[in-house]
Amino acid sequence: MAGLTQTANAEDGRTIVSVDAMGGDRGPAAVVAGISLSAKKNPDIGFILHGDKPQLEKLVARKKPLAGRVEIRHAEDVVSMEDKPSQVMRHGKNTSMWSAVDCVRNGEADVCVSCGNTGALMMLSVVRLRKLPGVNRPAIAVLWPSANPQGFNIMLDAGADIRADEHDLLQYALMGASYARNGMELQRPRVGLLNVGTEEHKGRPELREAHELIAQNAESANFEFVGFVEGRDLPGDVADVIVTDGFTGNVALKTGEGTASLIGRLLREAFKYSPLSRLAALLAYTSLNRLNKRIDPRRVNGGVFLGLNGTVVKSHGSSDATGVSAAVKLAFKLGQSGFSQKLAARVASAVSLPQDTLQSSETNN
Amino acid sequence: MAGLTQTANAEDGRTIVSVDAMGGDRGPAAVVAGISLSAKKNPDIGFILHGDKPQLEKLVARKKPLAGRVEIRHAEDVVSMEDKPSQVMRHGKNTSMWSAVDCVRNGEADVCVSCGNTGALMMLSVVRLRKLPGVNRPAIAVLWPSANPQGFNIMLDAGADIRADEHDLLQYALMGASYARNGMELQRPRVGLLNVGTEEHKGRPELREAHELIAQNAESANFEFVGFVEGRDLPGDVADVIVTDGFTGNVALKTGEGTASLIGRLLREAFKYSPLSRLAALLAYTSLNRLNKRIDPRRVNGGVFLGLNGTVVKSHGSSDATGVSAAVKLAFKLGQSGFSQKLAARVASAVSLPQDTLQSSETNN
Repeated sequence: MAGLTQTANAEDGRTIVSVDAMGGDRGPAAVVAGISLSAKKNPDIGFILHGDKPQLEKLVARKKPLAGRVEIRHAEDVVSMEDKPSQVMRHGKNTSMWSAVDCVRNGEADVCVSCGNTGALMMLSVVRLRKLPGVNRPAIAVLWPSANPQGFNIMLDAGADIRADEHDLLQYALMGASYARNGMELQRPRVGLLNVGTEEHKGRPELREAHELIAQNAESANFEFVGFVEGRDLPGDVADVIVTDGFTGNVALKTGEGTASLIGRLLREAFKYSPLSRLAALLAYTSLNRLNKRIDPRRVNGGVFLGLNGTVVKSHGSSDATGVSAAVKLAFKLGQSGFSQKLAARVASAVSLPQDTLQSSETNN
Repeated sequence: MAGLTQTANAEDGRTIVSVDAMGGDRGPAAVVAGISLSAKKNPDIGFILHGDKPQLEKLVARKKPLAGRVEIRHAEDVVSMEDKPSQVMRHGKNTSMWSAVDCVRNGEADVCVSCGNTGALMMLSVVRLRKLPGVNRPAIAVLWPSANPQGFNIMLDAGADIRADEHDLLQYALMGASYARNGMELQRPRVGLLNVGTEEHKGRPELREAHELIAQNAESANFEFVGFVEGRDLPGDVADVIVTDGFTGNVALKTGEGTASLIGRLLREAFKYSPLSRLAALLAYTSLNRLNKRIDPRRVNGGVFLGLNGTVVKSHGSSDATGVSAAVKLAFKLGQSGFSQKLAARVASAVSLPQDTLQSSETNN
């Protein structure tokens, strides 16, 4: 059963990505097409694919780049978008999602990718992989198209947990900075804390306390703390990592997506308005394509669950082959860099104690 | 002093708008140009203008549409963007902003417009106009470009107060619905409550309680409650009024603005890329202009402070003549419709009590 992985993949030093083939809106064909795109571009990835074996065997056989690169694990059931996370925990043992996550748990794969139900994937990941020592609340980190040179900012938490106190926010800062180093190759990422103004007296009490904690840890954790940032800095260039609670992060993310999609719609309408504007649209085709590529949500596909013993990448439910391939690329990068281990070390070394305790312990060392 | 207003304006049944001419980023010239645009289009507005009298007299004299329509009130001082609200409360009696708000307080004007410091304007408005009976936290309502037929949604609170409990959220729903009826002519506005998901079990406890309170009051307050909505619905078409606390609302607003401005920048870059794309840009000029007009922040200019004895419209600090004129148009509409009185009546009639108390009092009536 595990033959392909062992011989064709792991022994060649490939990074193994465990992929949930079912549960996305476009079904397993889009997932297989996506991993095939990735396999073609990158000889160092191998896959363990979870789902309906007969169906997956047919789909994989049609893709030449996947020859000798994929091991298929049969899973009877599928987690649907409507399933409640608690139901999945009780009755989901035979689902492709469970099987995909467990491959990371038992060390067969470095990282897991799924397009399925976010809530269920999060709960499964927390229960099966368990939280890293010292992490109270795991977080979902997303990439945000931005004015920065790297083209994206990282925002967390995008909605794993609706609450976060000052210690959680410090952990998000540490995890986000680590992600920026390993996923984006930013040696010294700039971290900002989301608030309603940039003055230090603004915002909720836990934000002012988090401001202090994060500032204390910036030097030792090798990031630059730029202090409070505002909503407009999410797509801006003053920070690479932006930290917030999951409620605010989720609203901001969906607001940004909604705004971009309204503008896209209005732009299309504007170009359909008159014969001249239709001609302009034709001439502007490559320009508009260039813009589209820059803010294409499929290219920033992949929320990453941080704070667990293992890395899980959540791809959009509606991901097509391009989207799946983008998520796999990110998963590969994080898996290959040993991100989970580095993140664990970073969180473990952080100082989350009140200032006076910190100072006395420093004096003692 | 009050001659012009009394004779040329009030006695003709004009709606009087009190305008703070100072404190905006572009100075009094932009404000005077803005009210002149409004005066030209609308014979039913009169103005009381507050600021440096010699300077304002010169500016007003140059604008023909303003002849006989403006009374100037001298104010020695100006509230700067850097002034802290508390400083303004202590030492701001001679500022144009104070004078402009007091004109509404003493009944000389129906509504006030300022481009100045938001925090100071809010605090001044609350202290000088006082909260409506029954209102705990006043709110800032903003217009949001949307996919709705009216082109805009109303969101509140956009940042007057970073906290809001379930009773505050109910008041925001009532105030927002009243604003939609009087400012947008929507007879039965659809009201949504911002959350991280649309299922009733989601979100913070106060949101679930607010859901119940708002649902109870929808029928009597003559709006349709569409339940929980998400960030993507702010520019969407499922609700006309979206209710949230001031922290979340402020982050969402600035995220939306930041996203729109990033896309605008990328669009301009895309069209500058090659000779062909520059030609396309030329042909697309009117199309792009049409889009620009649709999402131009100057056209949606004017956050409105709700929940006070009187209406105050906050125009963007960087407003030019077009922006000021848009804010004046909104102020006129609200002043003319007797919005403040209607809002007061609406809030007073609302049921913000626990369900059992409500039922027994209904039985008694």
